[in-house]
Amino acid sequence: MDGSTTSNGGGGWMRPMDEEQLRECGHRMVDFIADYYKSIETYPVLSQVQPGYLKELLPDSAPNQPDTLDALFDDIREKIVPGVTHWQSPNYFAYYPSNSSTAGFLGEMLSAAFNIVGFSWITSPAATELEVIVLDWVAKMLKLPSEFLSAALGGGVIQGTASEAILVVLLSARDRTLRKHGKKSLEKIVVYASDQTHSALKKACQIAGIFPENIRIVKADCSMNYAVTPGAVSEAISIDLSAGLIPFFICATAHDMWFHIDAAYAGSACICPEYRKYLNGVEEADSFNMNAHKWFLTNFDCSLLWVKDRNYLIQALSTNPEFLKNKASQENSVIDFKDWQIPLGRRFRSLKLWMVLRLYGVENLQSYIRKHIQLAQHFEQLVISDPRFEVVTPRNFSLVCFCLVPPTCEVDNGHKLNYDLMDSANSSGKIFISHTVLSGKFVLRFVVGAPLTEEQHVDAAWKLLQDEATKLLGNVVQ
Amino acid sequence: MDGSTTSNGGGGWMRPMDEEQLRECGHRMVDFIADYYKSIETYPVLSQVQPGYLKELLPDSAPNQPDTLDALFDDIREKIVPGVTHWQSPNYFAYYPSNSSTAGFLGEMLSAAFNIVGFSWITSPAATELEVIVLDWVAKMLKLPSEFLSAALGGGVIQGTASEAILVVLLSARDRTLRKHGKKSLEKIVVYASDQTHSALKKACQIAGIFPENIRIVKADCSMNYAVTPGAVSEAISIDLSAGLIPFFICATAHDMWFHIDAAYAGSACICPEYRKYLNGVEEADSFNMNAHKWFLTNFDCSLLWVKDRNYLIQALSTNPEFLKNKASQENSVIDFKDWQIPLGRRFRSLKLWMVLRLYGVENLQSYIRKHIQLAQHFEQLVISDPRFEVVTPRNFSLVCFCLVPPTCEVDNGHKLNYDLMDSANSSGKIFISHTVLSGKFVLRFVVGAPLTEEQHVDAAWKLLQDEATKLLGNVVQ
Repeated sequence: MDGSTTSNGGGGWMRPMDEEQLRECGHRMVDFIADYYKSIETYPVLSQVQPGYLKELLPDSAPNQPDTLDALFDDIREKIVPGVTHWQSPNYFAYYPSNSSTAGFLGEMLSAAFNIVGFSWITSPAATELEVIVLDWVAKMLKLPSEFLSAALGGGVIQGTASEAILVVLLSARDRTLRKHGKKSLEKIVVYASDQTHSALKKACQIAGIFPENIRIVKADCSMNYAVTPGAVSEAISIDLSAGLIPFFICATAHDMWFHIDAAYAGSACICPEYRKYLNGVEEADSFNMNAHKWFLTNFDCSLLWVKDRNYLIQALSTNPEFLKNKASQENSVIDFKDWQIPLGRRFRSLKLWMVLRLYGVENLQSYIRKHIQLAQHFEQLVISDPRFEVVTPRNFSLVCFCLVPPTCEVDNGHKLNYDLMDSANSSGKIFISHTVLSGKFVLRFVVGAPLTEEQHVDAAWKLLQDEATKLLGNVVQ
Repeated sequence: MDGSTTSNGGGGWMRPMDEEQLRECGHRMVDFIADYYKSIETYPVLSQVQPGYLKELLPDSAPNQPDTLDALFDDIREKIVPGVTHWQSPNYFAYYPSNSSTAGFLGEMLSAAFNIVGFSWITSPAATELEVIVLDWVAKMLKLPSEFLSAALGGGVIQGTASEAILVVLLSARDRTLRKHGKKSLEKIVVYASDQTHSALKKACQIAGIFPENIRIVKADCSMNYAVTPGAVSEAISIDLSAGLIPFFICATAHDMWFHIDAAYAGSACICPEYRKYLNGVEEADSFNMNAHKWFLTNFDCSLLWVKDRNYLIQALSTNPEFLKNKASQENSVIDFKDWQIPLGRRFRSLKLWMVLRLYGVENLQSYIRKHIQLAQHFEQLVISDPRFEVVTPRNFSLVCFCLVPPTCEVDNGHKLNYDLMDSANSSGKIFISHTVLSGKFVLRFVVGAPLTEEQHVDAAWKLLQDEATKLLGNVVQ
């Protein structure tokens, strides 16, 4: 295909929208992207550019006259790709996955093509209705209690990220409590969470205006695989109650509080019967979220949130300006998802999730999850088999927390040694892993979740880590 | 091209990611989308389905086994498209535009393909750096004061929507004020806005916990084209100060408050020298936003926000958990946009904006804006030429507010007549317009902004409105 005729040649500019230009350019972009995936292993997984690299390569103002698509592709190859960290590389094991898939990608294309803004039912009924249906499908796959289904008082909604999911339920809980106790009680309302809870909750509290001294971080018990004991939580709550404070939100065991379960990562695995047990207790929860964009083959962003009573969301988040009024909304015959989220506008995100469910089917999604968990088990066994390393916490799902055991002469509990191991592995461009700190210990995190990862990639990653460890321990001995 | 071999046939399932399946399916989707645009005028602009239509058409649980891509395309055509309101149709004149373009679409494709999560610089340096560069480009196109550029203390960032842009600056202002006056002053801090300000500010106040009684809605002056007079604002502020309250945020004339300008829609027009005057006064502002996804050929979502001092954003919105720490961030040598927004995760949205700027160039973007404004002027002239109608407010940009003048016998100020006119026009499926209420009067809104709209579409829309008016006025006379 010769792409130069309509989009580049003859001085004619690309029209804002023209179906034949779109077709021609779209085909060229599909080939570019397929070629990118074909060569994805040839790039350093973690971009190796230095801060400010791109400013040196691009002009400092927008062009007055259009560039050609060819020029743009050249720039993408030469200037953009070197600055990309390749989350879809089979050698990506950092943070949590952000998995793409063919179906998810096709859904993104179609959503971008319709380019609707689905704030109210009327602005594209299919967007709202498909979202309701698909969230019911996934709730059933997860065997969530029936209160979370749209037929009851609850229902599901797609948020951009888990941060937003947590924020909207925190706001719902805050406003429910303030309606009861009066809005000047803000200074008294208390949030409880484990010290292993994601920073998203802390940020949500900051946004919601919760007083920092009213955030109770309950220490997780390392002898219980970093779970919080119910006793520790009850104790914290009793102390606050006797001080006249108002416990109102807990992120993961219930009282008269809003109880939210954040399963952003692990939720996906619970579609497999053998992992469903990790959701035991969800029947006590007011809300539950999992990110389809992490480990469910659905492109970012797609965070699924279910609530047992949608009215609390709507009371906290609805606005009803005149210019958005319409018959269907006024008659209360439809859902307007604008009232379930922070922003007004919203993309047609249910399309990609629907396409993933349709084009893979439940059984293949289960196989996908199981394969990654098996690869993580395999990695865990490799770590255990090398006495220089240790597995720090029992593995659940596809995340292995491990470290290189420091020689006894080291005083920093292995912090520098493990940092250097991570840094040298990541600097090689061959793999990308990340870290965290548990009980003061610097711990390496290896998560299997990229859609192209196979056993050979895990083996190669392990070999690299072993080789780098040998070099580092050799240095230590000198 | 025969699409059936790898993705549909032989019982083999679609692999999570496989570059040749992606290529084949991607080409099929491009053709589907180009064909959609080719036939876009054959669909009712406003979807004519009834609430609950899709539940009747789809199964109530996800399939266990994969479906074929062919089956999916059939379902999209038969079940999804009828429920889509076609924002890209040339006959779409409702709300504000959400314009797609070939370049914007290509940017969405590439962003979906990389599928990175750009919360920190390190997770894809190109995503952060391109965003900084492109926001500087657009700031220069808008001739924003140099304090808003990244080289100064300020800088730009892409938010999902204007709602989020307004929320983050409101939070920044709130926290700046509470740091100064103590966090128990929350009950005293006051927000000022015109009664024409978008409901997004009200919702942002709700989220931020601003007391509802501390939101001062200053009445706009209809003799001044619905602008607020500085006198009215000063008076409201003086009253609050003398009552011991703390004025802290104003959405569009400054005191010692955070001054935000929301130009979500009109900002785009200000890249034309003849419209830049509407930004006069921006040098006094602390923050400014415009939506590239409305009228700037960039697909949804892409809301551009600039601030004069990024530190206030970062102080209000940063978190720094261990698992996200990395050398570049710790050395303060990079921007981590996670600290400038509500969510942690973020898409590579700068790609599409960059591609729009590159593939169209500044002059063509200016022509695009001017063309729409000319079409709106043309529509305004048509309205003026028919004595049965009136233009309600002087037209700025591409929005015409107008109404059908009610016969003197009508008691509701023309509310029902104009509602019926809108309803009959929208129910025809031929055009989609929306409404608002100004000074108690039901007003029709006609916005030109879809990328395919030409003079013939405006003429046809006007003809339809005239014909429906004739029918309605005939009925009234009976």
